[in-house]
Amino acid sequence: MELNKNIVQLLEDIVGASYIFVDLETRNHYGHDETEDLIFPPQVVIKPANAKEISQILKIANEYMISVTPIGARTGLSGGALSIYGGIGLSLERLNKILNIDEQNLQVTAEPAVITQVLREAVAEKGLFYPVDPSSMGSCWIGGNVAENSGGARALKYGVTKDYVLNLEVVLANGEIIWTGANTLKNATGYNLTQLMVGSEGTLGIITKIVLKLIPQNKNNLLLLVPFYKANQACEAVSEIFKAGITPSALEFMERDAIEWSAKYVEGINVEIKDDHQAHLLIEVDGNYPEILMQEAEKIVEVLEQFEIDEILFADTEEQKNVLWKMRRSVGEAVKANSIYKEEDTVVPRYELPKLLDGIKRIGKKYGFQSVCYGHAGDGNLHVNIIRGNLSDDAWNIDVTKGIREIFELTVALKGTLSGEHGIGLVQKNYMGIAFSKTHLELMERIKYVFDANNILNPGKIFPDDL
Amino acid sequence: MELNKNIVQLLEDIVGASYIFVDLETRNHYGHDETEDLIFPPQVVIKPANAKEISQILKIANEYMISVTPIGARTGLSGGALSIYGGIGLSLERLNKILNIDEQNLQVTAEPAVITQVLREAVAEKGLFYPVDPSSMGSCWIGGNVAENSGGARALKYGVTKDYVLNLEVVLANGEIIWTGANTLKNATGYNLTQLMVGSEGTLGIITKIVLKLIPQNKNNLLLLVPFYKANQACEAVSEIFKAGITPSALEFMERDAIEWSAKYVEGINVEIKDDHQAHLLIEVDGNYPEILMQEAEKIVEVLEQFEIDEILFADTEEQKNVLWKMRRSVGEAVKANSIYKEEDTVVPRYELPKLLDGIKRIGKKYGFQSVCYGHAGDGNLHVNIIRGNLSDDAWNIDVTKGIREIFELTVALKGTLSGEHGIGLVQKNYMGIAFSKTHLELMERIKYVFDANNILNPGKIFPDDL
Repeated sequence: MELNKNIVQLLEDIVGASYIFVDLETRNHYGHDETEDLIFPPQVVIKPANAKEISQILKIANEYMISVTPIGARTGLSGGALSIYGGIGLSLERLNKILNIDEQNLQVTAEPAVITQVLREAVAEKGLFYPVDPSSMGSCWIGGNVAENSGGARALKYGVTKDYVLNLEVVLANGEIIWTGANTLKNATGYNLTQLMVGSEGTLGIITKIVLKLIPQNKNNLLLLVPFYKANQACEAVSEIFKAGITPSALEFMERDAIEWSAKYVEGINVEIKDDHQAHLLIEVDGNYPEILMQEAEKIVEVLEQFEIDEILFADTEEQKNVLWKMRRSVGEAVKANSIYKEEDTVVPRYELPKLLDGIKRIGKKYGFQSVCYGHAGDGNLHVNIIRGNLSDDAWNIDVTKGIREIFELTVALKGTLSGEHGIGLVQKNYMGIAFSKTHLELMERIKYVFDANNILNPGKIFPDDL
Repeated sequence: MELNKNIVQLLEDIVGASYIFVDLETRNHYGHDETEDLIFPPQVVIKPANAKEISQILKIANEYMISVTPIGARTGLSGGALSIYGGIGLSLERLNKILNIDEQNLQVTAEPAVITQVLREAVAEKGLFYPVDPSSMGSCWIGGNVAENSGGARALKYGVTKDYVLNLEVVLANGEIIWTGANTLKNATGYNLTQLMVGSEGTLGIITKIVLKLIPQNKNNLLLLVPFYKANQACEAVSEIFKAGITPSALEFMERDAIEWSAKYVEGINVEIKDDHQAHLLIEVDGNYPEILMQEAEKIVEVLEQFEIDEILFADTEEQKNVLWKMRRSVGEAVKANSIYKEEDTVVPRYELPKLLDGIKRIGKKYGFQSVCYGHAGDGNLHVNIIRGNLSDDAWNIDVTKGIREIFELTVALKGTLSGEHGIGLVQKNYMGIAFSKTHLELMERIKYVFDANNILNPGKIFPDDL
């Protein structure tokens, strides 16, 4: 059904006139995220205060079959928060409180609109550690992290969002509110709806409270920037470090363009990138005991010296560490500042990384596009930024799409999959048939139906158009 | 439909005459697990060789609507492997190979009937570590561990089975075979069917291959046995150790009867248990650096000295460590040797443990039963063995059931849940309404329907009779 004035009035009765918007400026503001240059404004933007109001909104949406797109910080890279069918844009921004830091049980309970970095800092003040650190952690929200199962640089040692979510309060499509699990580290009590909800991209329910596991804060770390003369050797070194028995807390790969563009884009970076450096690894070890970290760093250097590397930069100060991390985290923005691009989020078992990188370059040559590759090499998660540059509309829309399809086919052939941490959302959905059989996709679609028979929650995401 | 001779013939055509059994002895053998003294023999026991044969079997079972109970090592404690409606008992015992230890990617691929300890030892030979260690790891199978989301003593530091499962090959009820995910550490590609399958107790599909994440093997550990004069203080000490910034690799609680019965039951244990010791903690720290472990052990001792404890026993040798672990792991068997018992698998946030223990004892007094409590205090997982002793049938069947209901109500009130690591299976299913609303249970039931519309896979488990 269309969203008409009567329904807008019903919604206004729930949240009050100050929290509902139909003007074009607001709708456009909430109509985009960080995915390419796409804009899909909702017909109405609504900002409920709590789960109860969300429940009332969903009851109306369900009755009148109006699509509801949950909107977080709009830092997503797969278009998950785009209101592609108009309808209701449900901004979670008022659910922005850390409700409880439980120092006895090492848990935090938060609402979805808490900025990930704010949550990390709040628990750090109590000596606790929430390790998941998406590159956008300064602006993304913890609710979006749960919806997309976000990762980050420390995932190789500490895991991703799903590994920290213990329990979720969720408003279902019919307005009922449930907790998915229990606030316990172990749970073997029925189907794991908590993990089903994590990464479901707002299609199964609206997450309104999140209970996360925390761990004790680490006190120290060491950071190394390693220039490689051959990009493939940088990929190969990744597995060798693990085989030496070391689990770094971060192991990031940047090919030449990635680091160069970012170094130009971010102010105050004073890293020399020589003409013959094809790639860099940024390697961190962390722990409580500085002398142990030194031992581990020495072991890493021993491994690295088997490869053709230039001089290793050890970050001496906190400031220098921050600069190096800022450089790494800014690659996406730097590429964006340079050109329109499509970002793919390929992931493979880490030893397959050199084959993946080779294949991406080969496919790029075949279809005539340039790509900038970087990402979390420690867990085989390689971001592939395909640059629009001077490509024609046809080349951009047709040839590049074919190329992306081949990249994903390669990824799956290497026992990897389409997305490591960005989600499928809108822009990857038509590639899902590469990773999953029809049977498999239908299972997922029928699970969607169990939770949302009228398909009001974030419709048009995850599932391919031709399913 | 009844399982008649024609159907048995169809099944025999699939696996061959040597792998199908209808004799009472075999059926009884496969009709029990370690749950109380229950026996539910299947009408036919069948031992397929591979996923393809299982697919053929399920197609027939689905066509004729015959229940199929997957049977593993039958070490379960919730009756998950009992063929309560007869039908086909599907023993996975021939799928017993470790298929691949991938040293490059730190992964192992195994079939379900590999004994957990065998898998642990096989990867340890390559310097790799699979940390999940259920007490029954010498006899239980990795497939059962996945089906029940088993935990163990090291879960507080290393997590449970679900934290290591990357990908599963599953035969669905209709005979189709899928892989649930990808062999990657990160995955944000559609709904997480892998985690939905973990802990689903054989009700959603038959697991035929398992890809597990591994980590580098730790080289050292220290083990302490700490006698407490007050059981509650042992529980309180658990949280204090974590608050001191230490994450032990094991933190086990045994109340007096548990350790005493086990010490008598296991040969060669030479631990003095004084009359006024109410409980013990068994505490392990592990890592690569012995000097760091000594520092951590000293910090733990500092914490413990705030409580009323007797002299701490440091295990000096590997042999002594093995004896202490054997004593801990044998509590269940020791209680079983002593009396028929019901074992509950309560779990709460760890700080709530003293309240849980108090409550269990109070409830036991109210209903006139004795309980022996022990378990994984580090993650709030307390096993409650309720002793039959001289209780009448009425007391055992009616009063004890009321008492268990109250224990679970307390568990849930403390933000815990019914089962930490044993699963719900048959014997806990009618308590599920305590942990979940009707809406929630119906969501689970409808997910079951998505995977198994004819309810042939392990029917009569997990869901309460009155749903």
